[in-house]
Amino acid sequence: MRAITTRPGVADSARLDELPEPPDEPETLLVDGVSIGVCGTDAEILSGAYGKAPPGRERLIIGHENLGRVRSAPHGSHFAPGDLVVGVVRRPDPVPCASCAAGEWDMCKNGLYTERGISGLDGYAAERYRLEPAFAVAVPAALGDLGVLVEPTTIVAKAWEQIERIGARAFWKPARVLVTGAGPIGLLAALLGRQRGLEVHVLDRVTDGPKPALVAALGAVYHSGPPRDLPAPDIVLECTGVGELVFDVLEIAAPDGIVCLTGVSSGTREIPVNMTALNKQMVLENNVVFGAVNANLRHYRTAVDALARADRPWLEGLVSRRVPLAGWQQALIRRPDDVKPVIVFG
Amino acid sequence: MRAITTRPGVADSARLDELPEPPDEPETLLVDGVSIGVCGTDAEILSGAYGKAPPGRERLIIGHENLGRVRSAPHGSHFAPGDLVVGVVRRPDPVPCASCAAGEWDMCKNGLYTERGISGLDGYAAERYRLEPAFAVAVPAALGDLGVLVEPTTIVAKAWEQIERIGARAFWKPARVLVTGAGPIGLLAALLGRQRGLEVHVLDRVTDGPKPALVAALGAVYHSGPPRDLPAPDIVLECTGVGELVFDVLEIAAPDGIVCLTGVSSGTREIPVNMTALNKQMVLENNVVFGAVNANLRHYRTAVDALARADRPWLEGLVSRRVPLAGWQQALIRRPDDVKPVIVFG
Repeated sequence: MRAITTRPGVADSARLDELPEPPDEPETLLVDGVSIGVCGTDAEILSGAYGKAPPGRERLIIGHENLGRVRSAPHGSHFAPGDLVVGVVRRPDPVPCASCAAGEWDMCKNGLYTERGISGLDGYAAERYRLEPAFAVAVPAALGDLGVLVEPTTIVAKAWEQIERIGARAFWKPARVLVTGAGPIGLLAALLGRQRGLEVHVLDRVTDGPKPALVAALGAVYHSGPPRDLPAPDIVLECTGVGELVFDVLEIAAPDGIVCLTGVSSGTREIPVNMTALNKQMVLENNVVFGAVNANLRHYRTAVDALARADRPWLEGLVSRRVPLAGWQQALIRRPDDVKPVIVFG
Repeated sequence: MRAITTRPGVADSARLDELPEPPDEPETLLVDGVSIGVCGTDAEILSGAYGKAPPGRERLIIGHENLGRVRSAPHGSHFAPGDLVVGVVRRPDPVPCASCAAGEWDMCKNGLYTERGISGLDGYAAERYRLEPAFAVAVPAALGDLGVLVEPTTIVAKAWEQIERIGARAFWKPARVLVTGAGPIGLLAALLGRQRGLEVHVLDRVTDGPKPALVAALGAVYHSGPPRDLPAPDIVLECTGVGELVFDVLEIAAPDGIVCLTGVSSGTREIPVNMTALNKQMVLENNVVFGAVNANLRHYRTAVDALARADRPWLEGLVSRRVPLAGWQQALIRRPDDVKPVIVFG
């Protein structure tokens, strides 16, 4: 079978490999790969800046935004051949920390987790793979190949869950949301905000391409100007990882406002900050800023539910290109109009 | 009757005034002032930098850290003559915002609240004052004149409540606490941490005076070195308002760590910050930073409970000086060994 592999730490070492079929492990699902979404983490891995091969191996099968179809399932697994399935990315530590033991590996306290396609475990960019039923999430047939959006949606499902749990610290009836960045994560964050009946604003730099129309189609408002011109949001989902934006959105957040950081980027630039003034504002306005990474099983389930309720043509608009496995490299070259490129198997 | 008044906005305008007795308002408590604690906010008001007189008036009676004794109480108020009582400081907006209407004026969303002794309402630094039963909190007789510590304790009662409510966003079993600043707020924050059975570390600059011994007497660990040498805390209560410290404590916070900002200070100094890297750490470690200000009625009740459970000699150690009303100015001059100076009436 074919799989996309790379040598972590070595730039441009990715290739389409011919590998043996997965081993015979009858207690797990045997899955045919359907498709793989490509994101910034994949680009980072392929650039050699990130990722780790499984123990004792040089190469890693990549791919974490996954969709597959069950080929065979163990008895009692609640899966049957033909079912669409998404595999969880992160796995608990071998000797689990308290959070991992509680099923919340997304909150892992010791950093010893593994991640399929990223760190220490083979990913899903393969024509066939094994999947433990405990880490497999059923995708309704009606969602079809849009199930490849489940994994990125888990990120915002967790973000929204954490915003609402943190918001419950006091009386709180948020009305206005700001999402910074109109990439796939930002657009899905906006979708979940609209599904909650909130007024959603999305800020990005671009003024053309598909993003403004995707935002408008949600019933949300698209902005490309400076953040300070925006109305004060009760909730911010920061989806770019750009440090300066964190200050900008804190400055305009409403009293009791909650800022959720979901984006990660690299940068060494230092900017001058009056932290004493920022601290004072946060205290006097009861502001919250928090980071959210990854997702656990319950976020996969809420992500599936959110996608199942969404408008299908709108979700189709997120998948900007479908590239066959043979041309996989095309999916990794970023185009100006890209939202989410997908590699399709078989 | 005598009262300490000032002209907000005018430095060094405070004086001991002879004022008429409070008006006849039989639906409220009539209270004899017992004592007033002095804090940084009082110093800021007396310097002319902060505060607002009641509408149509030039002068404001100061004093918000209050303790009084009921002289007369309306029928059905659950108070009787002789009861010790603390008055709530902040009051909801005249046309309340949703948070104020829900009794959470500490989370006021429009900033139109008033504060006795600070902003728009006379304070408690008077031999006699009126107090609405709905904003009066009973102090057990056993706590006696240490009831003057209730109001500063409400600040940390709210901080701890919010930490615990935010912590409930996920599985979380915190073990280690860092408190920055060993002033009254920091020491009371440490007390509440120890009452929760947590390992508490307190960081301050001083190496002599009463603070190290007060920390040790709690069964907590006192530190005066750089924050980076401290073990990673699950919870931080930042009680200084010094901007640089916010970065320092974020850097050492454990994964899933929660940093509560309670301190406010002034400063215009800008420091260079790689905010992109700080954002990345917060995302990957699910860190939370939030501000907490003021307190509502339930925080007054938990503050009274916390003080009632505390060691009385330890609480005595927080009251560094008791100054009679005639010498009130002495309480406002900061001494190196001061923890909490108190002005005593009658």
